[in-house]
Amino acid sequence: MRLVVPVSGSDPKTRLSSVFTPDERREFTEAMLADVLAAVGAAGHSPEVVATAPVACDAPVTVDDRGLDPLVNGLLAETDGELAVVMADLPLLTPPTVEGLFEPDADVVLAPGLGGGTNAFVCRHPGFRVDYHGASIRDHRRIARETGATVAEVDSRRLATDIDEPGDLVEVMLHSDGAAADWLDDAGCDLAVDNGRVTVERA
Amino acid sequence: MRLVVPVSGSDPKTRLSSVFTPDERREFTEAMLADVLAAVGAAGHSPEVVATAPVACDAPVTVDDRGLDPLVNGLLAETDGELAVVMADLPLLTPPTVEGLFEPDADVVLAPGLGGGTNAFVCRHPGFRVDYHGASIRDHRRIARETGATVAEVDSRRLATDIDEPGDLVEVMLHSDGAAADWLDDAGCDLAVDNGRVTVERA
Repeated sequence: MRLVVPVSGSDPKTRLSSVFTPDERREFTEAMLADVLAAVGAAGHSPEVVATAPVACDAPVTVDDRGLDPLVNGLLAETDGELAVVMADLPLLTPPTVEGLFEPDADVVLAPGLGGGTNAFVCRHPGFRVDYHGASIRDHRRIARETGATVAEVDSRRLATDIDEPGDLVEVMLHSDGAAADWLDDAGCDLAVDNGRVTVERA
Repeated sequence: MRLVVPVSGSDPKTRLSSVFTPDERREFTEAMLADVLAAVGAAGHSPEVVATAPVACDAPVTVDDRGLDPLVNGLLAETDGELAVVMADLPLLTPPTVEGLFEPDADVVLAPGLGGGTNAFVCRHPGFRVDYHGASIRDHRRIARETGATVAEVDSRRLATDIDEPGDLVEVMLHSDGAAADWLDDAGCDLAVDNGRVTVERA
């Protein structure tokens, strides 16, 4: 089964603009992508990257600037619905986490993200399509049901934790020792406890 | 093994004050507690509740107004380190999630919460103690290591999702159909999509 990792190559992770420059956001995006590719590869898959602009990584890259929905739906049509998609901003991924995504015996396996997103899926049904806007996990459940596909969801914190905002960086520093965690370390980021809440501060 | 669910009975969930009255916060806390007790019970355990003030629930309740650290460390001493603790604000719990917490063959099994907390643990070692302040997951790893205990961590979004802030309510509405989700529904809460982000609005 093809496994595709879509990534924004042009101006990624704008919600991290308050802490990182545009160049830093690109570097950090490539570090997170490296972590995802390493976990997926160690779990036995050969990932393909589809980026909106060239990115540096250890996998074949196709540049495609369609939006996420037409891109993934085009791939679903092309593969007759035999496709796995894993987002690029999941640096907490480990090989067992990726293996867990492929375990459930269902036509469509969904990995919910925090906040209603869908961070990964495995599809084995020709009728499934994606709609990533809004509470996409709810829409994907509905779309799968309407097309007659059986659905399972995985319960993984590591798959649920996509890194979008400064507050999310805490998760990388607490739960990963990969490329993204190293990058944060090199960038002078450190954990701080402020009024009982854990935050990331930059030296 | 004793399984204890600590809960604040007096003025719980103050970070939800912007959306719920004190009475509502108490009701919602009891609804979340009911979900936790149901999941834990269905997984074959007989939970005990320890509350800072009386709470209504379907389990034996002890009122104890010590702080969380002295309470749990007292229980660890009392049980010679054979103890499970599951927080009361985890309404996404399901029986398989609870079973997963008991699966790893380690002296101390930790369930990280989002933001650096420790939402549940299973202890089978006399030397382990807790320190819930700050990035407690990091401290608990260290404490377990220092006492010579083997440590495992579970990768569960449902165990990681403690409900503290208005933004967390989205997770209850998207991923649960238990008492807390029903309570939110009855309170007129509904999902809304605002600028691509999913939020909860109250009618």
